[in-house]
Amino acid sequence: MSLTFIQGLELSGTFAFAVSGATAAINKSYDVIGLLALAFITAIGGGTIRDLLIGATPVAWMTDELSNTAIIVAAVIAALFFSYVKILQRWLNIFDAIGLGMFTITGINKGIAAGLPIPVCVALGVITGAFGGLLRDVITGEQPVLFTREIYAVASIAGGSLFVLAGFFTHLPADLIQSISVTVIVGIRLLSLRYNWQLPRIRQ
Amino acid sequence: MSLTFIQGLELSGTFAFAVSGATAAINKSYDVIGLLALAFITAIGGGTIRDLLIGATPVAWMTDELSNTAIIVAAVIAALFFSYVKILQRWLNIFDAIGLGMFTITGINKGIAAGLPIPVCVALGVITGAFGGLLRDVITGEQPVLFTREIYAVASIAGGSLFVLAGFFTHLPADLIQSISVTVIVGIRLLSLRYNWQLPRIRQ
Amino acid sequence: MSLTFIQGLELSGTFAFAVSGATAAINKSYDVIGLLALAFITAIGGGTIRDLLIGATPVAWMTDELSNTAIIVAAVIAALFFSYVKILQRWLNIFDAIGLGMFTITGINKGIAAGLPIPVCVALGVITGAFGGLLRDVITGEQPVLFTREIYAVASIAGGSLFVLAGFFTHLPADLIQSISVTVIVGIRLLSLRYNWQLPRIRQ
Repeated sequence: MSLTFIQGLELSGTFAFAVSGATAAINKSYDVIGLLALAFITAIGGGTIRDLLIGATPVAWMTDELSNTAIIVAAVIAALFFSYVKILQRWLNIFDAIGLGMFTITGINKGIAAGLPIPVCVALGVITGAFGGLLRDVITGEQPVLFTREIYAVASIAGGSLFVLAGFFTHLPADLIQSISVTVIVGIRLLSLRYNWQLPRIRQ
Repeated sequence: MSLTFIQGLELSGTFAFAVSGATAAINKSYDVIGLLALAFITAIGGGTIRDLLIGATPVAWMTDELSNTAIIVAAVIAALFFSYVKILQRWLNIFDAIGLGMFTITGINKGIAAGLPIPVCVALGVITGAFGGLLRDVITGEQPVLFTREIYAVASIAGGSLFVLAGFFTHLPADLIQSISVTVIVGIRLLSLRYNWQLPRIRQ
Repeated sequence: MSLTFIQGLELSGTFAFAVSGATAAINKSYDVIGLLALAFITAIGGGTIRDLLIGATPVAWMTDELSNTAIIVAAVIAALFFSYVKILQRWLNIFDAIGLGMFTITGINKGIAAGLPIPVCVALGVITGAFGGLLRDVITGEQPVLFTREIYAVASIAGGSLFVLAGFFTHLPADLIQSISVTVIVGIRLLSLRYNWQLPRIRQ
């Protein structure tokens, strides 16, 4: 089995998402089944909601052996080396940002293939990249990070919009457009973490 | 674009549902992305669950530009004029009741079209009208209003049952039956708010 | 209408699941609509998630009059005789374990019929048997029992794996394999309750 560079990027994102689920499970004193389940739900939740909404069943993870393996490996590593997870958080943030970027593009492409309007495709990109984390937070009873902290959805929307606009209005090769868009998402996400950017909220 | 009266009623309901989501988001200190997302989830959540259950994909909101526009407008208005939302709550309750009525009938009609048993169709009406609010409450970590306060589902069930029974046992025109049923739902809902009717609950 | 033994076992499980939902609703002071809704969601939630994931719509409960009747009866009985529910908890645990066993096998068989990989089929068994309870806990804002207490998923995984392995590697009749597998699930589940077995969890 030879892994393409693209697959490697996606897997590193899946891995980071799964670690974030496993970490949340450990923080909530879940047992090992809860840890494995939350790793899975966090990693494949966004793509699953996307597939359900557009009617692409059986949903993608069910036949994606590579991702499923990565999730199990991530859960085991997070369980065995939990004390290192915090130390390695900076690396996990990078992988997580790559996952957000890659999954955003995957979601948009599936929306376009389903003939959906462009803004809905961008929304499907956000859903694919970010709603696994939303499920994780709802299940563990935490305030959704996606709605309350940090720049996450905005990075996905910015890069996703660039992706569809560049596809319409330029003649650049698809690979290049995708690379630039993912880079924009990763860049905005990591800059927002570095400088603690926050979105405005409405005062009550 | 010319809007029919029916579409106007549905849109006023969608608007009220979205405002209720936006309001919940502001109360929980969500940022502007959380506000927009919760407005959407509250407004389209019930119809989306219904469509998923019967396999009507891509789910309805994805191709319903008018509703999506109404939701975005509602979210922006709720954000800009939040201090007025409380003052206007009485009007919003009326729009919300209209939404419950219209969505109940939509859900029932989709169930009938899918050939499902009548009680299941009535349940689909309730799901369409009320489960967006349930999602809102689960995501924000609140006790579900639908299960704990006020007459909401019962209004939908009463009007929905009238709708299917009148369709079977009378020869009244469909438009008239629908109008009466929606009026019954709106009436029960607003009377229950006015007189603070509550359903019984089982003492522990 | 004559009920087969298999149907009887499934119905006793559905009944126990519905009682557990109704009990959770009463503990949270839900009104009678909340009680009925949570009984339904707990009893049919797992099978519904399974059907959505594999695209089997309309989802099973919509045309399963027998189950729906059992759920309504369970909700009414739990409401009327709530003080007895605790006393009868031991019997309910047995029915619940039977439900876990039966639903696990149903889920696996649906996964096999959909041509999905074996580990995914076992996962669908767990989802069918246990995710209704997960939905119950998420809606009521409780820590998921499935992820934090007792041996539940493991019983389903053990019996489910036995079911698929025996199907591949032996020539025993399907009925016998199913009976043994359900017995294993019920046995592990009840022994774990009796001796308060717990899964390990990772220390923070």
